[in-house]
Amino acid sequence: MEKQKLQIVKIGGNVINDEHVLNSFLKNFSTLKEPKILVHGGGKRASEISSAMGLVSKMVNGRRVTNAETLEVVTMVYAGLLNKNITAKLQQFNCNAMGLTGADANVIIAHKRDINDVDYGFVGDIDKINPEMISLLLENKITPVFCAITHNKKGQLLNTNADTIAAEIAIGMSKLFETEINYVFELQGVLKNIEDENSIIEKINLKKYKQLVDEGIIANGMLPKLQNCFNALENGVGKVKIGDASLINSTTTKYTTLSLK
Amino acid sequence: MEKQKLQIVKIGGNVINDEHVLNSFLKNFSTLKEPKILVHGGGKRASEISSAMGLVSKMVNGRRVTNAETLEVVTMVYAGLLNKNITAKLQQFNCNAMGLTGADANVIIAHKRDINDVDYGFVGDIDKINPEMISLLLENKITPVFCAITHNKKGQLLNTNADTIAAEIAIGMSKLFETEINYVFELQGVLKNIEDENSIIEKINLKKYKQLVDEGIIANGMLPKLQNCFNALENGVGKVKIGDASLINSTTTKYTTLSLK
Repeated sequence: MEKQKLQIVKIGGNVINDEHVLNSFLKNFSTLKEPKILVHGGGKRASEISSAMGLVSKMVNGRRVTNAETLEVVTMVYAGLLNKNITAKLQQFNCNAMGLTGADANVIIAHKRDINDVDYGFVGDIDKINPEMISLLLENKITPVFCAITHNKKGQLLNTNADTIAAEIAIGMSKLFETEINYVFELQGVLKNIEDENSIIEKINLKKYKQLVDEGIIANGMLPKLQNCFNALENGVGKVKIGDASLINSTTTKYTTLSLK
Repeated sequence: MEKQKLQIVKIGGNVINDEHVLNSFLKNFSTLKEPKILVHGGGKRASEISSAMGLVSKMVNGRRVTNAETLEVVTMVYAGLLNKNITAKLQQFNCNAMGLTGADANVIIAHKRDINDVDYGFVGDIDKINPEMISLLLENKITPVFCAITHNKKGQLLNTNADTIAAEIAIGMSKLFETEINYVFELQGVLKNIEDENSIIEKINLKKYKQLVDEGIIANGMLPKLQNCFNALENGVGKVKIGDASLINSTTTKYTTLSLK
């Protein structure tokens, strides 16, 4: 039997930080055919609230260290403020959204990242998702909305990268669905020339990806992002698209499609 | 066919404010037979976070006014910090908890309270709950954990009294289940003599309730609490118990049982 399609959309700060952009995106997302899943990052609200509370973000190698106070702030902002406002907005647009962390119904289990050179604090690396529970929600026309918080099943919440959450959910759901991930970010896609925002590479397969890495065209921040995508493709995900917010249901806009072949 | 029992437990600040008390309560709650529902209030964390952010709580007639900034704080603290930590703790104790606001899967719809003499701001009065959706979760062995946030289905989150949420959920679920509410508060029950904490009145029916009100024994803060309870009993809820945290599964402790007859 052919598997049903499942679209997993991940949005980051560039969509979340502007209320009008977010509203317009959510209205658009609500028109997508079910089943679908939304995953959102944090945006700058966490930093603003941290500052307002007099907390100082500790960064190591450009990454935020999640100490106990920071974990409290991201739990409040991601799982409370952002997740519930997004859920309420989607409900307004008649999308039956349900906001979730990994702790809710035990849908994402992670472990605290091992301390090697750096102690990142309460940061979670995902062990497994719970596809049966997520399927139960999808079968009942519920649209799960995941924020970037997981748990370790031992009572500890953990701050977890939203791109990775989207990839792991897609991988875990691939046994049951034909999965597609849409990564929405600030550009229209992967660029051939970083100075020219119209130089979108529309299709990248595994062979071309390796070639682009060798040529240094895929570098810096784009490298881990695409590694994450190809990891998903190699583990059962059917298709990955990267582009701006309009990619999720446009037939005319440009974006980058990643696939193995 | 006889209806299945459903236990709805509401906890407030006296349980939430102390980590050890909360932990011990949640461990205890997790041993209760399913189906069950937990509803929690806010505790003093919302006030602490408000202060840390430099916000001043505006009170009218002893009640907090929920302006836009206060709504952000209660959404962060109730739906994020408290709700997700409670959920993660229950998962640790093998209770398959799922943290919810009224916006999630549209389970509680409210409207912004009308402005008469006082504008309470973003405070919600409940219009209806969604018993089918809550039943779906219960049938799948999920324990819903509600915080004191609802929505109006028009994109607006609303701050809503947790006692009322517990009562309205119990009323709404009474068509499908034999419901019992347990209100956990700082005393062992309704006291005959407010100065004597051992003077617990163990049973109060509607007739005795009216008599106790006439005699001035039920007064002040206890009056709206018991009005809320008898409203639930008159609308299908089978039994209401009021007492301290041990009442939820103790066979020896004293508490007050309310019933119509």
